[in-house]
Amino acid sequence: MNTPAQIRQRIRKGEHSGPTAGLAPGFVQCNIVILPAGDAANFAAYCEANPDVAPVLMRSAPGESAIAELGRDLDIRTDLGRYRLFQGDTDSEVATLHDIWRDDLVTFALGCSFSFEDALRREGVDLRYLDRGEREVLYKTTIETKPGGGLSGPLLVSMRPLRPTEAIRAINVTSKYPGVHGAPVHIGKPEMIGVDLAAPYQALGPHTVAEDELPVFWACGVTPQLALARANPALAISHVSAHMLVTDIRLEDLEIQAPR
Amino acid sequence: MNTPAQIRQRIRKGEHSGPTAGLAPGFVQCNIVILPAGDAANFAAYCEANPDVAPVLMRSAPGESAIAELGRDLDIRTDLGRYRLFQGDTDSEVATLHDIWRDDLVTFALGCSFSFEDALRREGVDLRYLDRGEREVLYKTTIETKPGGGLSGPLLVSMRPLRPTEAIRAINVTSKYPGVHGAPVHIGKPEMIGVDLAAPYQALGPHTVAEDELPVFWACGVTPQLALARANPALAISHVSAHMLVTDIRLEDLEIQAPR
Repeated sequence: MNTPAQIRQRIRKGEHSGPTAGLAPGFVQCNIVILPAGDAANFAAYCEANPDVAPVLMRSAPGESAIAELGRDLDIRTDLGRYRLFQGDTDSEVATLHDIWRDDLVTFALGCSFSFEDALRREGVDLRYLDRGEREVLYKTTIETKPGGGLSGPLLVSMRPLRPTEAIRAINVTSKYPGVHGAPVHIGKPEMIGVDLAAPYQALGPHTVAEDELPVFWACGVTPQLALARANPALAISHVSAHMLVTDIRLEDLEIQAPR
Repeated sequence: MNTPAQIRQRIRKGEHSGPTAGLAPGFVQCNIVILPAGDAANFAAYCEANPDVAPVLMRSAPGESAIAELGRDLDIRTDLGRYRLFQGDTDSEVATLHDIWRDDLVTFALGCSFSFEDALRREGVDLRYLDRGEREVLYKTTIETKPGGGLSGPLLVSMRPLRPTEAIRAINVTSKYPGVHGAPVHIGKPEMIGVDLAAPYQALGPHTVAEDELPVFWACGVTPQLALARANPALAISHVSAHMLVTDIRLEDLEIQAPR
């Protein structure tokens, strides 16, 4: 088992550039958004309006690339497998930020629901989809996030298929971790949130919902990327979905005692 | 609004003999089982084997009819609207226990899910079925309770129809109250627990599940009555379902801080 620092090293050296789900169980994985300092306040306002969708775990100082709060020897310019660049109306991907880094760039780290799958297993929730070799699936919903800082957009969700008894326990467990999206936003009736299970926004792997399972939907940290893209920013940087920052933060340190 | 003591007085005087759901919001309502002292240990063992189904809040001393622990001026022989008597293979109902009371009778009080409906509303969960003038429905499931003390039988559940977002919140809220059954045992797939929504064990009033609602199932305290009846006891006494003991116990005093 690799430590988060070892995983980041492998990513930095180009030895791993794929999705990070399942890596470093017990540690928090983060959605990343990097913006010029002048745009940071607006983005923070959008996150504050949508705390379950965009739970801000850390906001860096301008130009800060070694973010000790997130991990030892961490370099935000190299430690994600892939980066997504929004520049005006163009949308591209790069492997590192070396060519684009500036001293005014501010990093936001938002908790990702990948982080709680290990907690679910530890608390005895059977994640049969993982045993089947399947993955979470992302869907765009007809739910609108709350506008904030001039940003707005539809809610993206990640879906996990769970048997009813497991879904009930998963609701209880994930509610203890609002920092990585907390309780699900929906269960069992995809059509009510405009989701066609057969038409994902992005499939992170094979996926099915068995006859004895309910689709359970959690808010997804890719949501802010849609809001940023819609705003046609001069520059905004994010992770590529499923290619998260693996941090040294332990999930247990984010546990709250009185779920909302 | 009547206090629990006032409601018990009205029941004692025969002024109220119907279901107690919705009476004395904020106070715990109890399923009641009364047995000869010689049978109490076996019943306690069955409850212990099935704590979510039969959460014992109080067990009286033999012959104790004024149970101060449950309420001021309470008389267990008169303060339920209707009593059910199991005597061998006969099953009958009486209005009071005056004619049948004995000095060796032990009373068990088990928390009832009626108790948490007020908590759900206070925490902002929309109970639309109540607004529609509808009630909980009881179903017999194909789930077997754990045998204990020579008793066994199928699990009975109460069903409440909730929209998915409300169901998620209801799971969180009810999980804090294991003393009144805690989290639901099932959600959304009645056929998985052998339930045909159109064929209730008992309907406490009109009931529907709307297109945008999921049926949510909680363990029901009538379950032990089925186990007792199956055992053909010389004598066992219970409440008639939905005709609960209204106690002076405040639901908030049963709240736990770390739901399982």
